[in-house]
Amino acid sequence: MANFQGHALPGSFFLIFGIWWSLKYSFRYLNQKGKSRKMNYYYRKIEIIDGGMRVFFAAVGILAEQFVPDGPHLHLYNDHDWIKLMNWQHGTMYLFYGISGLMDMLTFLFPVVPLGLDRLLMSLSAVIEGILFYYHVHNRLPLDQHIHFLLLITVIGGATSTLIEVFLRDNIVLELFRASLCIAHGSWFWQIGFVLYPPSGGPAWDQTSHSNIMFITMCFCWHYLVAIIIVAINYSLVCGLVNRLKRSRGEENIGIQKLTSGSNLHEALLNDTDEE
Amino acid sequence: MANFQGHALPGSFFLIFGIWWSLKYSFRYLNQKGKSRKMNYYYRKIEIIDGGMRVFFAAVGILAEQFVPDGPHLHLYNDHDWIKLMNWQHGTMYLFYGISGLMDMLTFLFPVVPLGLDRLLMSLSAVIEGILFYYHVHNRLPLDQHIHFLLLITVIGGATSTLIEVFLRDNIVLELFRASLCIAHGSWFWQIGFVLYPPSGGPAWDQTSHSNIMFITMCFCWHYLVAIIIVAINYSLVCGLVNRLKRSRGEENIGIQKLTSGSNLHEALLNDTDEE
Amino acid sequence: MANFQGHALPGSFFLIFGIWWSLKYSFRYLNQKGKSRKMNYYYRKIEIIDGGMRVFFAAVGILAEQFVPDGPHLHLYNDHDWIKLMNWQHGTMYLFYGISGLMDMLTFLFPVVPLGLDRLLMSLSAVIEGILFYYHVHNRLPLDQHIHFLLLITVIGGATSTLIEVFLRDNIVLELFRASLCIAHGSWFWQIGFVLYPPSGGPAWDQTSHSNIMFITMCFCWHYLVAIIIVAINYSLVCGLVNRLKRSRGEENIGIQKLTSGSNLHEALLNDTDEE
Amino acid sequence: MANFQGHALPGSFFLIFGIWWSLKYSFRYLNQKGKSRKMNYYYRKIEIIDGGMRVFFAAVGILAEQFVPDGPHLHLYNDHDWIKLMNWQHGTMYLFYGISGLMDMLTFLFPVVPLGLDRLLMSLSAVIEGILFYYHVHNRLPLDQHIHFLLLITVIGGATSTLIEVFLRDNIVLELFRASLCIAHGSWFWQIGFVLYPPSGGPAWDQTSHSNIMFITMCFCWHYLVAIIIVAINYSLVCGLVNRLKRSRGEENIGIQKLTSGSNLHEALLNDTDEE
Repeated sequence: MANFQGHALPGSFFLIFGIWWSLKYSFRYLNQKGKSRKMNYYYRKIEIIDGGMRVFFAAVGILAEQFVPDGPHLHLYNDHDWIKLMNWQHGTMYLFYGISGLMDMLTFLFPVVPLGLDRLLMSLSAVIEGILFYYHVHNRLPLDQHIHFLLLITVIGGATSTLIEVFLRDNIVLELFRASLCIAHGSWFWQIGFVLYPPSGGPAWDQTSHSNIMFITMCFCWHYLVAIIIVAINYSLVCGLVNRLKRSRGEENIGIQKLTSGSNLHEALLNDTDEE
Repeated sequence: MANFQGHALPGSFFLIFGIWWSLKYSFRYLNQKGKSRKMNYYYRKIEIIDGGMRVFFAAVGILAEQFVPDGPHLHLYNDHDWIKLMNWQHGTMYLFYGISGLMDMLTFLFPVVPLGLDRLLMSLSAVIEGILFYYHVHNRLPLDQHIHFLLLITVIGGATSTLIEVFLRDNIVLELFRASLCIAHGSWFWQIGFVLYPPSGGPAWDQTSHSNIMFITMCFCWHYLVAIIIVAINYSLVCGLVNRLKRSRGEENIGIQKLTSGSNLHEALLNDTDEE
Repeated sequence: MANFQGHALPGSFFLIFGIWWSLKYSFRYLNQKGKSRKMNYYYRKIEIIDGGMRVFFAAVGILAEQFVPDGPHLHLYNDHDWIKLMNWQHGTMYLFYGISGLMDMLTFLFPVVPLGLDRLLMSLSAVIEGILFYYHVHNRLPLDQHIHFLLLITVIGGATSTLIEVFLRDNIVLELFRASLCIAHGSWFWQIGFVLYPPSGGPAWDQTSHSNIMFITMCFCWHYLVAIIIVAINYSLVCGLVNRLKRSRGEENIGIQKLTSGSNLHEALLNDTDEE
Repeated sequence: MANFQGHALPGSFFLIFGIWWSLKYSFRYLNQKGKSRKMNYYYRKIEIIDGGMRVFFAAVGILAEQFVPDGPHLHLYNDHDWIKLMNWQHGTMYLFYGISGLMDMLTFLFPVVPLGLDRLLMSLSAVIEGILFYYHVHNRLPLDQHIHFLLLITVIGGATSTLIEVFLRDNIVLELFRASLCIAHGSWFWQIGFVLYPPSGGPAWDQTSHSNIMFITMCFCWHYLVAIIIVAINYSLVCGLVNRLKRSRGEENIGIQKLTSGSNLHEALLNDTDEE
């Protein structure tokens, strides 16, 4: 959907998941410090629901792309040309994110599924989105191309970092990084909507101006900055909550516990090897 | 061979090996769970046959490229120009895949050959294919170029993932990923044949149309989706088979065994380190 | 600030930090050889001051970019166009380096902050600088473009190597590499200033000459060579100092101690795993 | 030196070192199997001589580039333009390879030098060669550009694989890969000399013909194939020699020793971790 709604919809999906992930991973990391890290029943449940929500959102996206009034309504080809390829392409993106959600569900439902395939498919969904976007914007105006290429940066970053998670699972740094990229990805979709299809009905931006391109580049950096700040705030809130929970259960405070342990060197690496 | 057969032949080779690998690696992974992972006599045999088949297929490919009626028949240069360079290039690709198969055989026949060289040469075969393809399609029509560049994506993915296998050997996630890329690689060869040399004799596709390029990009994603589904089905079938085998031998069911072990965190990493 | 001072300022910042890092990391590595590597109170202090200085320098940079006589003075947009985007972009770069310094401080002040986030943010600051520079120089003269692209090489190298430090923390090879890139980054800023805005007031370089471009490429290599030499000298000086310190405290000499240990193979890897 | 000799000289250097490395690393790997891998006095000596030879070759290269009859004779700039920048650039390449050799010597002479810096500098030498070559060939004829870009492939491969050696030191797969790339690098220099400056005095190749470019691409693959075969032959010869040596010393045969050990899975990884 080449309009404001068509960018606001995926933007909202990514924003919601980015924020949710920053909370989920912060909680798991802070709650499990110093404890055995067996994934218990509740975590498993949450992961399955997480995957299920992604499947649901993907289905909503596909249906919206197909059955909006000017959508293809499942027609792909008439006797002369392809029909509404843009909508079909967007649907393909949603489809892969849905498959990735399905894989998450399967991974935590059936232990026979090898761990890591869920992260691999999540990474591949981003790669697919990248391929589609890259060839999406040929023959467009400079600003339109540029604003979509900046989107690709978050896509490439997300694909790479999630690919590393295949091998370094449950690494809090990578998980928070993924959450921040997801937030920036979502907010940038909104930004694209505002720039290319101003909802206020005002005049569109001059798509050939070099200074607009320079501003948009910088604006992208600011979006990512805001994403970092959101993740930092969420982490702090969860940290406060977990401390309060532990105190009410009579456990010692996280902060103090770690401070007295003297050294937190190599913790990142240890996180991935201490059970082996 | 710049015709339908010339694309169907390598396409079939890659399809066969992709499907075979998805079965082989699934079986080895599922059959060895919880057991010592010593590579026994039968696995070694299978690996040698696997390599041998690749050598055989490569030889077939090289001979076909050389001795088809319009082939170069081992002539490389006459007094004015190079002869049938296309066929020679295709032959070079087959040659490297044959060398890779030979290396597999040597690795499992002679223990003195360092492990990892087989994967390195497999990765290099893909790199060589990539280099040849990349310079293959200069000065062609846009659709022709684009459809070959999409092939490059599977080649690059395969080269990278196989290179990681040099260091993370016997990682089921990487092995299934390689199988899926191999299937998509093969089916995409068939797609190229159908698009550029329609066997039905119908009119060829308009090679300059932008919407054809957009469709082909999306079509590539669908091919990969089908490859994922094939691998998933094969994995499920093998899982059912192994469960039946184990039950008939009085062993416990895989699924149950893993479910009760509580946590399968870090298994991917553990797979590579538990014997060290 | 598109003048000599605007390049000399960040150049000096990077030079100072590169030299300081080459001293700091050499000292920590040489002083801790063979001892337990618990990060003690003083190292923690130094890291916090290090981060604080980066926040301070970033603030100086931002204020300078905003409030020089021809700066934007916090105005971003008037009724026709964006105001002084160049200064805003430079300010954004400083901002991210400041955030990275802040993250360093937080990491060593609050143990609840996961280790590795400081390196991730440092890597991201370099990525942001890279993105801004890459789109900064469109539509400029060839030499101007080229000299900025060479700067990008140090930025990309620094971003990549710091990203690896997220996973391989306290690796002396990576740390010295980062220091050398930082020095070359700084000295190259000075070089850009001398080439594009000769402070002597002499004639500027011919920006379209191919031989100027060839010389500048080679000159960049020489800058990096000087950076390597500076790091080597600093390492040797610190080594002499630490030896003298240890002798005065009655400890054995580093050199001898290591020579007798017979093998220093795998030390680089061991450095990252010996405490696990 | 833009003539046949100017390409034959570095070509010979790389060929000699590639072949020497394939012998050295094969011997060390095969001789140390099953034994403690302490680096003894003789290995250390060999490494120092290896580095010293590289310094010597680099010095020869620099002097040749400076003092050939049409060389710059240490003059860099006259009042109008840069003098013989090509020779200066080649000299810079030799310089960095010399620095890398010096670093090897320092690493094995002074135990206080951190291990890994030698590999890092070797990787950087290749990067520097890559940067210089990349900007070297702008504004040349298509075949000239293409034949140099193919050289870049071996440079990039070598830089990447040597960079991995910083972290996975003494990995035989990476070492043999480096040797094979080094041989192909050297033989390709000779090929460039034959194509661009035919020593027979015959007519030069048509530098704009597309079929020449296609042939050269394939020819590059064949060069690499020959490099692989050379490394394989050297490995086999060393293997036979080591077996004979061990038999004469009453030790068991390598091949048998490994065959009976049942499993050689993960050996590549084990090679890097078994001493930790």
